[in-house]
Amino acid sequence: MRDVESGQRSETVRRANLSTIVRALHARGPLSRSELVARTGLTRSAVRSHVGELDAAGLVREEAPTPLGLPGRPSPIVSLDRDRVSVLALEIAVDSLAAAHVGPAGEVIELRRIDRARGRMTVDRVVADLADLAHAVHPGPMEPDALVGVGVAVAGVVRRDDGLVRTAPNLGWTDVPLVEQMARALETSVPVTVANEADLGALAESRRGAAMGADDVLFISGEVGVGGGIIVDGRPLAGAAGYGGEIGHIPVNPSGAACRCGSIGCWETEIGEGVLLRLAGQSASGGRPAVDAVLAAVEGGDPVALAAIDHVGRWLGIGLAGLVNIFDPRLIVLGGRFARLAPYVESTVEAELDRRALVAPRGLVRVTPAALGEDAPLLGAAELAIEPLLSDPAAWLGQRPDQADGSGFAPTNADWRVVA
Amino acid sequence: MRDVESGQRSETVRRANLSTIVRALHARGPLSRSELVARTGLTRSAVRSHVGELDAAGLVREEAPTPLGLPGRPSPIVSLDRDRVSVLALEIAVDSLAAAHVGPAGEVIELRRIDRARGRMTVDRVVADLADLAHAVHPGPMEPDALVGVGVAVAGVVRRDDGLVRTAPNLGWTDVPLVEQMARALETSVPVTVANEADLGALAESRRGAAMGADDVLFISGEVGVGGGIIVDGRPLAGAAGYGGEIGHIPVNPSGAACRCGSIGCWETEIGEGVLLRLAGQSASGGRPAVDAVLAAVEGGDPVALAAIDHVGRWLGIGLAGLVNIFDPRLIVLGGRFARLAPYVESTVEAELDRRALVAPRGLVRVTPAALGEDAPLLGAAELAIEPLLSDPAAWLGQRPDQADGSGFAPTNADWRVVA
Repeated sequence: MRDVESGQRSETVRRANLSTIVRALHARGPLSRSELVARTGLTRSAVRSHVGELDAAGLVREEAPTPLGLPGRPSPIVSLDRDRVSVLALEIAVDSLAAAHVGPAGEVIELRRIDRARGRMTVDRVVADLADLAHAVHPGPMEPDALVGVGVAVAGVVRRDDGLVRTAPNLGWTDVPLVEQMARALETSVPVTVANEADLGALAESRRGAAMGADDVLFISGEVGVGGGIIVDGRPLAGAAGYGGEIGHIPVNPSGAACRCGSIGCWETEIGEGVLLRLAGQSASGGRPAVDAVLAAVEGGDPVALAAIDHVGRWLGIGLAGLVNIFDPRLIVLGGRFARLAPYVESTVEAELDRRALVAPRGLVRVTPAALGEDAPLLGAAELAIEPLLSDPAAWLGQRPDQADGSGFAPTNADWRVVA
Repeated sequence: MRDVESGQRSETVRRANLSTIVRALHARGPLSRSELVARTGLTRSAVRSHVGELDAAGLVREEAPTPLGLPGRPSPIVSLDRDRVSVLALEIAVDSLAAAHVGPAGEVIELRRIDRARGRMTVDRVVADLADLAHAVHPGPMEPDALVGVGVAVAGVVRRDDGLVRTAPNLGWTDVPLVEQMARALETSVPVTVANEADLGALAESRRGAAMGADDVLFISGEVGVGGGIIVDGRPLAGAAGYGGEIGHIPVNPSGAACRCGSIGCWETEIGEGVLLRLAGQSASGGRPAVDAVLAAVEGGDPVALAAIDHVGRWLGIGLAGLVNIFDPRLIVLGGRFARLAPYVESTVEAELDRRALVAPRGLVRVTPAALGEDAPLLGAAELAIEPLLSDPAAWLGQRPDQADGSGFAPTNADWRVVA
């Protein structure tokens, strides 16, 4: 169990309260001091003093509000300073690469995505292409006085401690030290952090998308593979080493097909994009255009396409029923390609949940498509990159980092401090 | 997401630090003031002042230590006072009822368990029998000056907010307001809290059993049904309403047998006790003696019994592989009847994990039998009952309850305050 025997000294409390203020500004955007008092529960004098500290370090700006013609002195508006606080978000998906420069309240300043052919591609090639994209969205040097961090979403299993990509079957990668390689290619000394794309999709949907305000969320996404990001009681499920959430590899049909993971009848072998395409008579590697063709055929009433979408919907519901019984989630968010399929599989999925999930948790759960579309993992990478600042802004005031407050995204790749 | 925008005022910190001290004494038993300083990270003066408050309220005792012949003044030994701080733990299992009077550091003062025949039994009958057992282990009135609370473990799906037993198929119960009925039968004004037996088994094994010190734990238990208790990053997984952890009802074989939950091919239909007994040629409702007979036949090399135990071991491994991929746990604890089966299924389970779990999480996980045996849920009920005191001891000092510190067992049945 978590060590619950650790007491709090006043310096710990000060750091936690600075974190509370910065998190509020990150989540809500500019707020008046009065709103900060109301939202954080801190006293007026504590807010004034902490905002003063952050201001002196250049992390926030205070501006006079637009006069409203009301009596009394209006409360100054506080915001994180975009010139000091922004992040770079990167994504390595199976058939695209993306980069975004993102501001302190999650606003996208510049975003570029390029399609790329599927199949194996050397790490060096991907890293170089991604670095080019990064410089396109964030011209100029990537230094700590302008950039808080770099977050990378990758379609693979990532070790939390050091960001090692243990395996990314659809990229053909094994044991890739992506943190170091990316930092070197970007020629940056700011922290680089790497995480799984579905975990980051869940994080983004929770903070700014379809799952805002929900504490218990199951996010499922997929292109070629099927991944998951799970929020339990407000916190991302990571597991002992960060490998958790691989819901594409739960055994749903032990007499089923061989999975590329080496097992048999994994969920992915029944609901992955390749299955839909193959059953509908398309090339299994046809990607987005082929999926669009299948959906057009479904709309046209084509029986082969209808049977294919029914198969995927049914197995999607079967697996989700098991996950509902395990997690008792409030919300299931269909992300990645499943967001595109949502209108076509919705009723089948709901029927399987009715048939197979336990009555008690079934009655509580709602299924909804992702709100952030295909950019969810990229926006999650931005959240990942800013997390160290949110957890301990005091470290940006020239003091040593302290313990995180433990209430946001889990601690991330420890040696993102590795610099080219 | 959890509200992370809540700041900390000094009163909150004081309450959290009182909680830290009481948790340490609960977890470790009597500690010297010096040990409390070392374990909690609080200053010597904070420990002195907080222990003084707890002492004045009669919650702790301070005693001079046994002299060691060392120079200097020895540090007084602090312990929770058993005369003020004890709990009553109750269990409603499918084939037994149990009650225990448990002291402030988890020590069993008195425990009784009685076997009962399986099958439907009225709630009134069970509650009356349990109340008799309770009075046998804790003679005298059950009042707040002696008893902190009553915890009840039940073989069913329990709503966290009010302890309603939504369904307990093996007892034949639906929507039973067990909190109120138990409080009335015990004629007590202390809080009664109800939770699922597997969740409580996991809690007990985490705090005092096979999973001590592990943050990511999967506990599986079963008699007739199969249940689970899951610890994620040091916290019990509850789900949106407390229904989480029903791992017996993940679909592993959709062309398999009908499950008593209404679905098809749930994990329980392949690894439940009835399956083992039926395949081994015993009556499916034979219970513990029949299981013992099967295991004796396995030891004697009986091929039918060997095939039966192999079936259960193989399917146990298949389902656990999926859960390893989802949770990336450090430890899988085999509880309930599975603890008894452990030596006979161990190698089959390990082989299926090798074959089916992803390499990265597979390499980290260890499978081990439960340490607390069949009493794990009962001891977990004791932990449940004492949790309000651990979370906010200040409420016992005559002040209103404040927010819990959030680092222990989740908040429990809100209207345990219901009194007969």
